[in-house]
Amino acid sequence: MRKINIAVVGLGQIGNYLLHELNSKKKDIEIKTGKLINVVAISAKNINKKRRYKINKKLFYKNPLDIFKHEKIDILFESIGLSGGISKKVVEKAIINKVHVITPNKALISKHGDYLSELAEIHKVNLEFEASVAGGIPILRTIKEGLATNKIFKVYGILNGTCNYILSQMEKSNNQFKEVLKKAQKLGYAEPGNPKLDLNGYDAFAKVRILSALAFNNKISKKKCLMEGIENISLKDVEVSNKLNFRIKLLGISEIVDGKLFERVHPCLVNKDSYIGNVSGVMNAVITEGEPVGESVLQGEGAGPGPTSSALMSDLLSILRGNIKFPFGIPNIKRKSIKVFNYDNYINSLYLRFEVKDKPGVLAQITNRLALKNISVERLIQIPNYKNKTASIVIITHKSKELDAQHCIKAISKSKNILKYPTLIRLL
Amino acid sequence: MRKINIAVVGLGQIGNYLLHELNSKKKDIEIKTGKLINVVAISAKNINKKRRYKINKKLFYKNPLDIFKHEKIDILFESIGLSGGISKKVVEKAIINKVHVITPNKALISKHGDYLSELAEIHKVNLEFEASVAGGIPILRTIKEGLATNKIFKVYGILNGTCNYILSQMEKSNNQFKEVLKKAQKLGYAEPGNPKLDLNGYDAFAKVRILSALAFNNKISKKKCLMEGIENISLKDVEVSNKLNFRIKLLGISEIVDGKLFERVHPCLVNKDSYIGNVSGVMNAVITEGEPVGESVLQGEGAGPGPTSSALMSDLLSILRGNIKFPFGIPNIKRKSIKVFNYDNYINSLYLRFEVKDKPGVLAQITNRLALKNISVERLIQIPNYKNKTASIVIITHKSKELDAQHCIKAISKSKNILKYPTLIRLL
Repeated sequence: MRKINIAVVGLGQIGNYLLHELNSKKKDIEIKTGKLINVVAISAKNINKKRRYKINKKLFYKNPLDIFKHEKIDILFESIGLSGGISKKVVEKAIINKVHVITPNKALISKHGDYLSELAEIHKVNLEFEASVAGGIPILRTIKEGLATNKIFKVYGILNGTCNYILSQMEKSNNQFKEVLKKAQKLGYAEPGNPKLDLNGYDAFAKVRILSALAFNNKISKKKCLMEGIENISLKDVEVSNKLNFRIKLLGISEIVDGKLFERVHPCLVNKDSYIGNVSGVMNAVITEGEPVGESVLQGEGAGPGPTSSALMSDLLSILRGNIKFPFGIPNIKRKSIKVFNYDNYINSLYLRFEVKDKPGVLAQITNRLALKNISVERLIQIPNYKNKTASIVIITHKSKELDAQHCIKAISKSKNILKYPTLIRLL
Repeated sequence: MRKINIAVVGLGQIGNYLLHELNSKKKDIEIKTGKLINVVAISAKNINKKRRYKINKKLFYKNPLDIFKHEKIDILFESIGLSGGISKKVVEKAIINKVHVITPNKALISKHGDYLSELAEIHKVNLEFEASVAGGIPILRTIKEGLATNKIFKVYGILNGTCNYILSQMEKSNNQFKEVLKKAQKLGYAEPGNPKLDLNGYDAFAKVRILSALAFNNKISKKKCLMEGIENISLKDVEVSNKLNFRIKLLGISEIVDGKLFERVHPCLVNKDSYIGNVSGVMNAVITEGEPVGESVLQGEGAGPGPTSSALMSDLLSILRGNIKFPFGIPNIKRKSIKVFNYDNYINSLYLRFEVKDKPGVLAQITNRLALKNISVERLIQIPNYKNKTASIVIITHKSKELDAQHCIKAISKSKNILKYPTLIRLL
């Protein structure tokens, strides 16, 4: 039986849980693959940090780059995080030393995935990153293998559990964004220090890029087409959407429109009765549309040490079973650079909310302006606030050019009857 | 570039569509695997049958067993169907000739899977059957690979699209089972001749067996623990469940209870707000519960030539990429024989419907009998039918021993006040 030497670099919540999994599933892995795994080196910033599972200090390296000098490593887990700096250096060095690499690091892959996958191809090792998108949901493996010969046109879903938790909770508790965020931080669902990368859509966007690279066989796009987070979603929007039988979800969407790549992350009004409208809390879900398979849905826990370790271990087994594969499913030379969709041409239904002075003529002012640009109204509700003599006017438009709608809003916002800059949320 | 010779045996809807896929995805497969596929032999009962895609008659063999005498085959697709007879012979012969086999044949695998997988192991070829369970949903691959080192305790779901379509349609159209079945047959969702194997749960049971063999690493169980179809579900049950915020779904369920294997297929009352309660029409869905991944859901089209071909092609790519694997994920010698759960001990909540004469004392007669066996009532509705002086009494019980409930029902049914044998449907 062949022995496989493993190094784990980065011993935060995920790396630490992974170490525990590696130890407790040794026998199972031996049965499934015929290989005996052995953790021979670990590394982290701080050897003495309080951790859930004890680490074997004899295996500890302060500098992860030193590991390659002293040990013969077959497979390296990188769970340091961040896109540049030491995590990139460790992965590079491992690959050059013909060490397979497994990482949950979406920032690293979405930024340097093309370069690193080429490097892995040259050195004939695996670079596996199942855990980088949607935690425990094996969506990358499903696109690369389970749906291998399908022509996929669209992949989208709920890719950030923090945002989904906050939006679900706003609806449930009738609390404003900021209060719910505090609760999420207390429960560990949002970063206590700086939750910005989750909330502004950046985290979901990194995942969208990885998904589209796999689904459409293109090089990872460097252009951010449309990225909006949930920081500006107010309780009022949650409530009004609800009345209209919608829910607000932060979606990551990648699709091919007129042969061009349209990647985006933004809040969406989705139908309450739809599948995606019923994925709540910290769950993630990914939907692919392909031919001949039709629509496929995968749902599961999108984050946390357990689900992430599940994905990391699936990568490990793939390598141990000898599945040497191109990191993005096909040789790098065959990957295309698909042109990016011009977002100015985006046509869609929109939810618009205007806060106005409640006096005659204001509604006509808004609807006239929309009519001028051929934006037709599908539904309209006016909700009066008698106390302040103000009202909220909410409009769902028929499909129209978003650029036109943006211009209208800007023009309308200048009126002295409009109390604040209007809200625009896209429908799915 | 290596050329791979392929034979397709069985040219019904699936085999015929597959041939078309093989031809149209040749280039894509070459890019993804570096292998050039070539269909060199086909076989079916009838060469001249009208088919959606034309077949190349030069490649035709009347007797599929002759193929091995005349051609060098690398990979064989078997899509004849049925568990015994020629399909088994062809698969056996292929494996012995060191030919990889891919099949969507759940009857064959659930009956002879253990024997055939051993044979494949001995002859060092792949036996792949992703398409045998839940059509286009890559659930087997997900269990074997995506969730490879998870400890799975339960796997369940909607595994038969015909039944799900009929139940959804009964709710939607307010029509009785028989009428809806006719419509399903017209639309091609149910076999026109003999839809029995779908309706009585047999089809779903075959899939449950395959799922539990993979999820729990056990040999395919030969015992049918509990199998009920949807033939006796009446519109009244659909309507009453609906009022109680439930839907009726035919579920296949496999779980480990007290270390024993509990496999079953039966109609279930599921919460309308639950995930599984919202999978409607011909869709399939499979839910796995495992550790550390938590709950995972996969949903997609469960049948039809397109989704089935998607799964068959994923098996093909797995073989072409050189992933030689044990058919059930681990060596046959390591697969266990898990003892079967004694269904007499099954404790569950139940939906009971009694059709009674509407006169004093009848309700007490029923509730007293239930109380005698310690079956306590969670909800009760009595729906009068003034015209006939009858009533329906519907009871949702707290968790109780099903065997006791069955005895009660039997006893109660003997009363002259009870108009027909009571209905029992399990809650999920």
